[in-house]
Amino acid sequence: MNFTQDDAEKLLNIIKARRDVRGNRFTPQAIEDEKLQMILEAGISAPSVGYSQPWKFVIIRDINIKNKLAQNFENENSKAKEIFKARELYKNLKLEGIKEAPVNIAVLYEPKEEDVLGMTSMKKMGEYSVVCAVQNMWLMARALNIGIGWVSILDAKKVLETLDAKKNSQLVAYLCVGYVDKFYEQSELKTLGWEREKLLDESITYL
Amino acid sequence: MNFTQDDAEKLLNIIKARRDVRGNRFTPQAIEDEKLQMILEAGISAPSVGYSQPWKFVIIRDINIKNKLAQNFENENSKAKEIFKARELYKNLKLEGIKEAPVNIAVLYEPKEEDVLGMTSMKKMGEYSVVCAVQNMWLMARALNIGIGWVSILDAKKVLETLDAKKNSQLVAYLCVGYVDKFYEQSELKTLGWEREKLLDESITYL
Repeated sequence: MNFTQDDAEKLLNIIKARRDVRGNRFTPQAIEDEKLQMILEAGISAPSVGYSQPWKFVIIRDINIKNKLAQNFENENSKAKEIFKARELYKNLKLEGIKEAPVNIAVLYEPKEEDVLGMTSMKKMGEYSVVCAVQNMWLMARALNIGIGWVSILDAKKVLETLDAKKNSQLVAYLCVGYVDKFYEQSELKTLGWEREKLLDESITYL
Repeated sequence: MNFTQDDAEKLLNIIKARRDVRGNRFTPQAIEDEKLQMILEAGISAPSVGYSQPWKFVIIRDINIKNKLAQNFENENSKAKEIFKARELYKNLKLEGIKEAPVNIAVLYEPKEEDVLGMTSMKKMGEYSVVCAVQNMWLMARALNIGIGWVSILDAKKVLETLDAKKNSQLVAYLCVGYVDKFYEQSELKTLGWEREKLLDESITYL
């Protein structure tokens, strides 16, 4: 299949319009099954080392589970507030949307027992494949005008316990998924002055 | 910005048409600067934990460096052939395109010295951000009808030495980038019967 310049520019627009969405932007509007399906289909179409497809998507709507995970976040964020106590802004940031988002998706890495092609030298390729799936889902959601927020201030081991995940699973990403009242024009942390934008030239070396 | 159903379907097409490209498919056709620029722009538009943007892209065209890295691959792949000796297919697989692809890009993770928002509990979020950049680049390239192959059968430490990378850098991905004579319809490893396709239902749990 050949794509056009217009297709490429559209993709770049989607990539640039993707935001990390938190609870203050999610609306309670339900996500249609066929849209959730498209997001998951994007996930399983990700590259995976040795075609190992080592991902598991746990779709969470149960309010009791969400409550436990929100508490997990609160515990971890208390520690983080202490670490960032010199920066006043931190404690006022909304950093998750576990209860506000109608759907949460825990994305797990399930390592294979047998050797995997492409993982003999670089052992992290399995979990990296799962991250590629997450990024596919994030872009797909954005193209459907659905927001995703990646919550990382969690005790991963306890998340796995709460989800009753298979032994040896690893938590790669915890995603809050839902419609939003608006998408910000640019990264919220950039707007708020938490961190400056790195220019393209600063990120490149030519050899 | 609001995207249409047509935009979403186009994105899913790009996601599904993306392939891992090896040296037997690359052509020597040079990549236009503005297209390489679009690929890199997609990379730096990736999400990053705490807006840390911890990526470095090393663009490699130097033939001496490519030769060293191709040798690095050969050494590591000899070990891999031994590991997979029970599977005849392995030794006949072409698994990289370091010399055939006109451009190689090493994608590095440069950890920050200071604490990073969102990394206080899950320490791998920094490198995961870099993987998101790689996936953005891969999709962007595909939309420009350019192939990318991710080479992971490498001694990462030696790659960093060869690139004279900054201390503490980590190799996340080594990408071979170039035009191709064709994109396969589906994963080559699936076609060749190395691994079967996992169905969507096998990858999902509902809670």
